[in-house]
Amino acid sequence: MEGSKGVVLLNCFVSPFGNRVRIALTKKGVEHEVTAENMAQKSALLLASNPIHGKVPVLLVAGKPICESQVILEFIDEAFSTTGEQLLPTDPYARAQARFWVAYVDAKIPACAPKIWQSPKGAPAVEEGKKEMLVALKTLEAELGEKPYFAGESLGYADVALVTFAPWFLTYERLAGFSIAEECPVLTAWAARCADENECVAKSLPDPEAVFQFVGGMRKHFGLE
Amino acid sequence: MEGSKGVVLLNCFVSPFGNRVRIALTKKGVEHEVTAENMAQKSALLLASNPIHGKVPVLLVAGKPICESQVILEFIDEAFSTTGEQLLPTDPYARAQARFWVAYVDAKIPACAPKIWQSPKGAPAVEEGKKEMLVALKTLEAELGEKPYFAGESLGYADVALVTFAPWFLTYERLAGFSIAEECPVLTAWAARCADENECVAKSLPDPEAVFQFVGGMRKHFGLE
Repeated sequence: MEGSKGVVLLNCFVSPFGNRVRIALTKKGVEHEVTAENMAQKSALLLASNPIHGKVPVLLVAGKPICESQVILEFIDEAFSTTGEQLLPTDPYARAQARFWVAYVDAKIPACAPKIWQSPKGAPAVEEGKKEMLVALKTLEAELGEKPYFAGESLGYADVALVTFAPWFLTYERLAGFSIAEECPVLTAWAARCADENECVAKSLPDPEAVFQFVGGMRKHFGLE
Repeated sequence: MEGSKGVVLLNCFVSPFGNRVRIALTKKGVEHEVTAENMAQKSALLLASNPIHGKVPVLLVAGKPICESQVILEFIDEAFSTTGEQLLPTDPYARAQARFWVAYVDAKIPACAPKIWQSPKGAPAVEEGKKEMLVALKTLEAELGEKPYFAGESLGYADVALVTFAPWFLTYERLAGFSIAEECPVLTAWAARCADENECVAKSLPDPEAVFQFVGGMRKHFGLE
């Protein structure tokens, strides 16, 4: 297996889940390769590495696969702990708070976002998805409050989990006809701050226009446009 | 607040999620009180402690709330680590495997189980829920294989996460007309082993007949029977 001695990430460049892993590896200074997966034609390596879900991201460490982005991020924080940078704080209660908000992001955003981008334009599901997304984003905005980052002064676990959805905001806005910047100005400023102040974020996120083009291609493929 | 100096669990006796916390606290020898919540009339304490979801379990530690069972179990493992017993192994890769299977349980079982017990008898959703549940249980059974417990020789994180659904099996079987013992003999033997060999499990699980009665009461309340 190629790269069996190192760290290899199987990813798709638009994946919010895969891009969390890119941020974490970069933040912690872990040397790694990224292998681009075509989700319409999954590689034998992906299917062998994640037989249960067949999804990206998969992190291969010395050839051993780890699946699911939350699981991978916890692994990275534990296995590569000598670089000084940590995603999770040390205090157990603060760790619980970070995990709670990551679980919130994963319970809410992946449930409403596809209603927007996997539905025909103007379908009732699009409006439903928009409403649910605004509830979730405003809840997250209220939790952020006046803090620069979710856990305080620096980029942490919850920031990494949420910020990878920011490149998709443009797509949600165009397809559902609303403005996240107008509805959630604090969260919008936070997303910009994450990229401006953290090279690991800036380097790991796709161009929002490229996401929109990618989604447009998928929508044409599935007869939605 | 009552018990503000100690450890208090807000729970409902049938909750698979809350009962995970009971097992974990008992396994680690953490002194605690359990407060029974009536989910049809949630207490002010529950709503104040978990304003985002309004659900059990909530663990109050010196008055500070922790929500979501996975988050609580990780917290218990980290915060009460002096008793010798741990839910998660120490090796990061083994920890990742345990977390992967807990995430699998939580992605699959809570998605199919309500189709069985929240639908009218004979509805197509019941059959759909049964089929999905058997796929999930057989996948878990294959992962267990010939090991006594998911992580090897002793009760761990994935065991605790799954075994709290075992008292519900009788209800699923009666409502959907199938036998989990026949379909999944290895998993059935594992569930018995968890209770037989671990007092923390035996003491924390409700009687399956009591679960069936409880569910029957809810079904009547919602006009399903």
